[in-house]
Amino acid sequence: MQNTDDTIVYRLGATCGLDEVEEGKTYLGWVQGFAPFGVFVQLNERVKGLVHKTNVKMKHTERDPIIVHVLQVRSNGNIDLEEVTPIVYQTENVIKKMPSVLLGDIGKRVGKTVMIRGEVAQIKQTSGPTIFTIVDESGTANAAAFIEAGVRAYPEIELGDIVAVTGEVMQRNNQLQIEVGSMIVLMPEEAAVVRERIEAALDKRAEPREIPFLVESEVLEALRPQMRKVAKEIRKAVFSSRPIVLRHHADADGICAAVAIEQAVTALLRESGADFDAEYFLFKRAPSKAPFYEIEDITRDLDFALKDSVRYGQKMPLILLMDNGSTEEDMPSLKMTRIYDLPVMVVDHHHPDEVVDDYLIAHVNPYHVGGDYGITAGMLGTEIARMVNPAIESQIRHLPAVAGVGDRSEAPERARYLAVAAPEYSEDDCRDIALALDYEQFWLRFGDGREIVKDILNLSGNPERHERLVDLLVEEANRAIEEQVEAIMPHAERRVLENGARLFMLDVELFAHRFTFPPPGKTSGEVHDRLVRAHPGEPIVTIGYGPDFAVLRSRGVMMNIPQMVRELRNEITGAGVSGGGHLVVGSIKFVEGMRDVVLENLIKKIGKAPI
Amino acid sequence: MQNTDDTIVYRLGATCGLDEVEEGKTYLGWVQGFAPFGVFVQLNERVKGLVHKTNVKMKHTERDPIIVHVLQVRSNGNIDLEEVTPIVYQTENVIKKMPSVLLGDIGKRVGKTVMIRGEVAQIKQTSGPTIFTIVDESGTANAAAFIEAGVRAYPEIELGDIVAVTGEVMQRNNQLQIEVGSMIVLMPEEAAVVRERIEAALDKRAEPREIPFLVESEVLEALRPQMRKVAKEIRKAVFSSRPIVLRHHADADGICAAVAIEQAVTALLRESGADFDAEYFLFKRAPSKAPFYEIEDITRDLDFALKDSVRYGQKMPLILLMDNGSTEEDMPSLKMTRIYDLPVMVVDHHHPDEVVDDYLIAHVNPYHVGGDYGITAGMLGTEIARMVNPAIESQIRHLPAVAGVGDRSEAPERARYLAVAAPEYSEDDCRDIALALDYEQFWLRFGDGREIVKDILNLSGNPERHERLVDLLVEEANRAIEEQVEAIMPHAERRVLENGARLFMLDVELFAHRFTFPPPGKTSGEVHDRLVRAHPGEPIVTIGYGPDFAVLRSRGVMMNIPQMVRELRNEITGAGVSGGGHLVVGSIKFVEGMRDVVLENLIKKIGKAPI
Amino acid sequence: MQNTDDTIVYRLGATCGLDEVEEGKTYLGWVQGFAPFGVFVQLNERVKGLVHKTNVKMKHTERDPIIVHVLQVRSNGNIDLEEVTPIVYQTENVIKKMPSVLLGDIGKRVGKTVMIRGEVAQIKQTSGPTIFTIVDESGTANAAAFIEAGVRAYPEIELGDIVAVTGEVMQRNNQLQIEVGSMIVLMPEEAAVVRERIEAALDKRAEPREIPFLVESEVLEALRPQMRKVAKEIRKAVFSSRPIVLRHHADADGICAAVAIEQAVTALLRESGADFDAEYFLFKRAPSKAPFYEIEDITRDLDFALKDSVRYGQKMPLILLMDNGSTEEDMPSLKMTRIYDLPVMVVDHHHPDEVVDDYLIAHVNPYHVGGDYGITAGMLGTEIARMVNPAIESQIRHLPAVAGVGDRSEAPERARYLAVAAPEYSEDDCRDIALALDYEQFWLRFGDGREIVKDILNLSGNPERHERLVDLLVEEANRAIEEQVEAIMPHAERRVLENGARLFMLDVELFAHRFTFPPPGKTSGEVHDRLVRAHPGEPIVTIGYGPDFAVLRSRGVMMNIPQMVRELRNEITGAGVSGGGHLVVGSIKFVEGMRDVVLENLIKKIGKAPI
Repeated sequence: MQNTDDTIVYRLGATCGLDEVEEGKTYLGWVQGFAPFGVFVQLNERVKGLVHKTNVKMKHTERDPIIVHVLQVRSNGNIDLEEVTPIVYQTENVIKKMPSVLLGDIGKRVGKTVMIRGEVAQIKQTSGPTIFTIVDESGTANAAAFIEAGVRAYPEIELGDIVAVTGEVMQRNNQLQIEVGSMIVLMPEEAAVVRERIEAALDKRAEPREIPFLVESEVLEALRPQMRKVAKEIRKAVFSSRPIVLRHHADADGICAAVAIEQAVTALLRESGADFDAEYFLFKRAPSKAPFYEIEDITRDLDFALKDSVRYGQKMPLILLMDNGSTEEDMPSLKMTRIYDLPVMVVDHHHPDEVVDDYLIAHVNPYHVGGDYGITAGMLGTEIARMVNPAIESQIRHLPAVAGVGDRSEAPERARYLAVAAPEYSEDDCRDIALALDYEQFWLRFGDGREIVKDILNLSGNPERHERLVDLLVEEANRAIEEQVEAIMPHAERRVLENGARLFMLDVELFAHRFTFPPPGKTSGEVHDRLVRAHPGEPIVTIGYGPDFAVLRSRGVMMNIPQMVRELRNEITGAGVSGGGHLVVGSIKFVEGMRDVVLENLIKKIGKAPI
Repeated sequence: MQNTDDTIVYRLGATCGLDEVEEGKTYLGWVQGFAPFGVFVQLNERVKGLVHKTNVKMKHTERDPIIVHVLQVRSNGNIDLEEVTPIVYQTENVIKKMPSVLLGDIGKRVGKTVMIRGEVAQIKQTSGPTIFTIVDESGTANAAAFIEAGVRAYPEIELGDIVAVTGEVMQRNNQLQIEVGSMIVLMPEEAAVVRERIEAALDKRAEPREIPFLVESEVLEALRPQMRKVAKEIRKAVFSSRPIVLRHHADADGICAAVAIEQAVTALLRESGADFDAEYFLFKRAPSKAPFYEIEDITRDLDFALKDSVRYGQKMPLILLMDNGSTEEDMPSLKMTRIYDLPVMVVDHHHPDEVVDDYLIAHVNPYHVGGDYGITAGMLGTEIARMVNPAIESQIRHLPAVAGVGDRSEAPERARYLAVAAPEYSEDDCRDIALALDYEQFWLRFGDGREIVKDILNLSGNPERHERLVDLLVEEANRAIEEQVEAIMPHAERRVLENGARLFMLDVELFAHRFTFPPPGKTSGEVHDRLVRAHPGEPIVTIGYGPDFAVLRSRGVMMNIPQMVRELRNEITGAGVSGGGHLVVGSIKFVEGMRDVVLENLIKKIGKAPI
Repeated sequence: MQNTDDTIVYRLGATCGLDEVEEGKTYLGWVQGFAPFGVFVQLNERVKGLVHKTNVKMKHTERDPIIVHVLQVRSNGNIDLEEVTPIVYQTENVIKKMPSVLLGDIGKRVGKTVMIRGEVAQIKQTSGPTIFTIVDESGTANAAAFIEAGVRAYPEIELGDIVAVTGEVMQRNNQLQIEVGSMIVLMPEEAAVVRERIEAALDKRAEPREIPFLVESEVLEALRPQMRKVAKEIRKAVFSSRPIVLRHHADADGICAAVAIEQAVTALLRESGADFDAEYFLFKRAPSKAPFYEIEDITRDLDFALKDSVRYGQKMPLILLMDNGSTEEDMPSLKMTRIYDLPVMVVDHHHPDEVVDDYLIAHVNPYHVGGDYGITAGMLGTEIARMVNPAIESQIRHLPAVAGVGDRSEAPERARYLAVAAPEYSEDDCRDIALALDYEQFWLRFGDGREIVKDILNLSGNPERHERLVDLLVEEANRAIEEQVEAIMPHAERRVLENGARLFMLDVELFAHRFTFPPPGKTSGEVHDRLVRAHPGEPIVTIGYGPDFAVLRSRGVMMNIPQMVRELRNEITGAGVSGGGHLVVGSIKFVEGMRDVVLENLIKKIGKAPI
């Protein structure tokens, strides 16, 4: 009878007693000793039963493993057993029935043995114990299971499982940990109940506080629901040990947005009792090379995330794109995220293409509510960071002003954020900080430079160092800009177009130093600014071009760059034209051999734009 | 007398008894106490002797170290000692004489103290104990020696030493470990015997199973001995904890070859009781930038290997080159491997230059047995992987078909491997997977992308994700190819050569997007394919050229590219011509300023090739 | 009365007794039990007092925390307490008064509990205990404080604090460690005394030994004070666990200089009882891309240093620049070091600009004492390394000869150093080693290649491998040079200038292979050497140029390159001319589009230089 496939043989956990022994079930034990009338069998160190000699099936020696069927548990505690010899069977662990305790309450049970029911949020093998991060509806804690140095304990337990953990609560300093006595995966029905409870609680705990924005703003108010959504998902990730990958545009606005969130998240991680270096492995901030989420970026992020998942038992990350992510160029990467079920959120102020929304769980963008580019990513990011973690507000309240000045916001919110920053930072200070960020990021290449960037933004608690650092970086940046401008200015070609606009053409590869600051786009912008100042009131277009690209800046000419790019693409075959940007500021790529054709046609179109 | 250089002072190990004390030898002990007739000396915690007062040479206090000469070991166990005061001496450890146990048998001795004789295969300092990986004729196990957290135990013991280890066998989960009580290096004669025994056993254990190939193939049968050799050396490396560095061509064929071996090795490492992350530090797969083993590659591999050896006590690696490694271009790197005595093996299907064989311990190449390029590296690699570890066959049986299609094999084996894959993968599926590999590898640059690549090859146990991923990558790859072809096609220069061949010239730098997929070689190939389809039956040559290189593709023209390169090199001075490849597909490099001269001469030669 | 802000509540450490209880002070204790006449309170496990019932302020249960004021300590040891209830207070730890022991003496106290007073030099969180590296006037030791696996012990203690540590001295192998029982930050006055004592002692301990140079040299003697200064600061860094970042020119001379220091420092670190891998995290050697300390280098160094400081509690590093660092081009980076208070030292033999000295704590440069380029960085570095650690002299005595030959020193010291090396290395050997270093470094890119470089310099104890490696690298280097020269030589343009000098112009981008060895500068030098040999006695100038740079080599023409660069910069607008170097060997950068103008003007100037 026991020889069918679905025989289940139970193993009694170390803390189990008579209560956990059920008549009719089969258990794995070991031979403890012999008596004339039968064999004594231990089901664990505390529970012993007897196999009457008539029920013994095989010869045994002491400590032999033996499988027994429970015939009867008598009222005096004696257990009558029958030896069985299943050929095929599954084993399952039994643990002591205890009321389970919430992780939020274990602080009161230090030194006691408790049972916890929760979800396995990470499994990290150390050179000592295996650390299971457990999340329940009330909090997070690590459970340390030691089998042997460096050996994975409970290999049957996987990420995302709902488990019951029994163990002693240890606390000595400011962290609680459970020393695992036993751990089992719950049966599906019970697991479902626990999971639902955890998710409901997590959902509630993750709800951001309702706080007013730093400034008055209709656009921000209209964006509030999506901003709360983003803040909530970030909090959820923190509370459930899901890593966050924050990708952002590598300019002052993008950095401000991202660093605001970085400050909020790392502080929240520290508060929430996570591992001592969780802020390094659960939060990664990475500036992107391109002004969108390139296929190379997602490839890298995915490669690392999958390896961390396989090797260190981490969850797959939540992806947050800031100051990029909202245009068609992001589509190939977004499609990749879907295949790996990565949740993605975008906080951007570039003109969005609707098509991306299918791939996002949240998207904050002023264009969605009638706002525009002037509500910069740094403003949005700072407000969201406050929702994530209001405690850090005092540190980051000047970031929107830096972002607004850095990105040349023309929205009324710019002045309001400057007023917020004003007690400590003048508009010039903000401009300097923004330039220092741009300059330093150039030399950091695409590293995050976490600590240096914090000094530039005065987030390290060392205002004197902040000031000296910004002063130096601004000085160096301006010197580099002057050198670049000085070299290129004499080579600017000037034309007056048929619509009366002045056109300036700069070969930024032939007449500027390469691979140094400022790069071609910024060089073109700096020259354009000087030209604009030199020709007050006149319509001006500046084109900085290299072998296979051109960067456009303009004032007073009503171009539509995306439209011109589309037309050029259709009109000129074999030029591989692509590009875009905003209406009057943007860039175009083409194949090197067709540069002259593309530029001439571009200039013709510009010459027809209304002034 | 004791003052000569070669006085040896023995230290009695903790578990030694009277049996290990030899009359006439000298031991290091400590003063235990004083009696009127002399001084009691402990040789270890268990063995005590007496120095009669007439034999005491110096004043002592309790626990003073003292060196003593054993005058006599009496039948009642009393030991008569004499104090000696050597000025110069060497110390040697004595450990308890025990019959030694095989590592393969320690599973039966859990909780017992055993002695093991084996070779030290790795010495890894952790922040806790020092872990010595010991290999004997029956297996591998870790021996943990703890002196102090983070301090190297037994600093006199080095990698490759033959040692005797005494300690308790610990087992709790699925791994055995020895807690070291004592460890000594064996004397040369005994060490030689043990080493020989280990090597003989390793040799036997490493012998691959005799299994039939997945398909019938004369070429494969002829290659079997060398393939077995490669499989055996891989198994040997795994069983003796030698790291493996697998370098491969960064295309679909090379990836298939390498991933097949990766699957076999990582599974074997896990089975063989290695460390929990051995599959990361004992196996490294790295795609190569060039189609050969560049000097930059070996430099990097060597730099890392030497540092790992010095810092982590790892053995120097076995190097396996797949889908490259068999030509003269590999020679500089191969010469470097010899200087460091690195064993190197090649599995390649490029036309081999004999000169490399001097530097290889094994070389599988179809050209050696009358086969050709059609037996691709992916086919060879998969068959070798099966020899290494037959258990993984079901996972990798479709890889040869992907490789064959990806590398455009025209061998009859291609169809046979497609038949093997057919129940699950059609030829179109294989083509898609190959294109997805190429595309993804481009964005991975030269990272291995281990987990993403497994998804593309459907090795992660998630067939739905595999399908969606391949579909997306193929879609993106094709879109990118179309864009590139669309840009360049109108700029193709057409000529008819004197032999009637149609020549198409493409400037792949001027008229294609740079630094994106597809790169110049693939762009040329794609255009060539379209031209071939557009001119059925006609002889066609396509040359894609940049400033200092040209890529050749042809159909129906009997060129001999290596021959032409040699001629150009001799005929044109100051052009720095080099290159090669196959007879009718290849590439040429030259200095930029001589491009026109080189190309014109090349075209003349092509015009004379028979149709 | 106790309710003021500055109430201090003391916590009595575990080992304290009556001696540490002071009348009039307030302590934190817990309720031990109740008697009819009052409440017994434990101040720690060993010290108990009584709160008379009239002095009890609140209801308590057993083990309640309670704050008490000490009314009286009676001669019989009874303590009379009064409960107090401060609302706001600070706590401070009290530890047992013990005479403190010097770290240099703890070896005699193994197994005993001692108190140490010293500075916290590093705080490293491990997955087990927190490791505090403590430095006092006599030495360094690690103190391990365990609270809970992976949890930071004593979070209030910071890097640089002066602390009193009580704990047991453990020693088993060759390292001593203190198992922390308690640890407190000393009060400012006491801390100041200890700090001064430590600094005085460190200063004394760091004093280099007075040893003669390997060769006679007036210049070296004149440089001795600065060299001693550099050696002393290096020793100080080692003894106080300050990381050292050594940046050096990526050529043979720079490598010799840096490796000599590397050998001295790593050996000193191992001797001085530092962590088992201190030589990896406390010493970093990095070749620089540019011949100066680029802004990109300092950015990277600073980014890492700040992260290591925040994450691993390391001190900010000492920066040592070798074979670069002494010119105006280093200024932007040096300014950055000042903002972060990084101490910087330069050992260079390039013509120094005075302006850098403001930013350096030491600067060894032969030009300061009437010497010149001929005293190479490798000579200086080796002599300083001997001062740092005389024990390694025998390993590095041939390095100055290699450096001198590699850098073409024409100083008399060259021959003397060759004589020092001569027993083992001929001048040809030195030349080969230098070429091997240049070649290998090219392929290492900007990695340090620590172990390979040691083999090239014969520092690994494997002379046979050294010889074979150098032979191979020299063979490969020469082959590569020949290929490059062969390609470019036919394209050399020849002119005779008005001053009679022969000018050779090489387009090193159009007519040489790119991105391979030798790079443009070395290619120009090799061609120049051949031209010089071919035209004995004649004045010769060789200009190797690319799109935006030119490299100058000359013989017999009295140019002043820095002067010419300044003139070109002023005379030609929009060319962005910069550069420099030595008088007759140097390089110039400009914007690509102005190359012809710059070169023509440069040639005119050369034509006017005296012969």
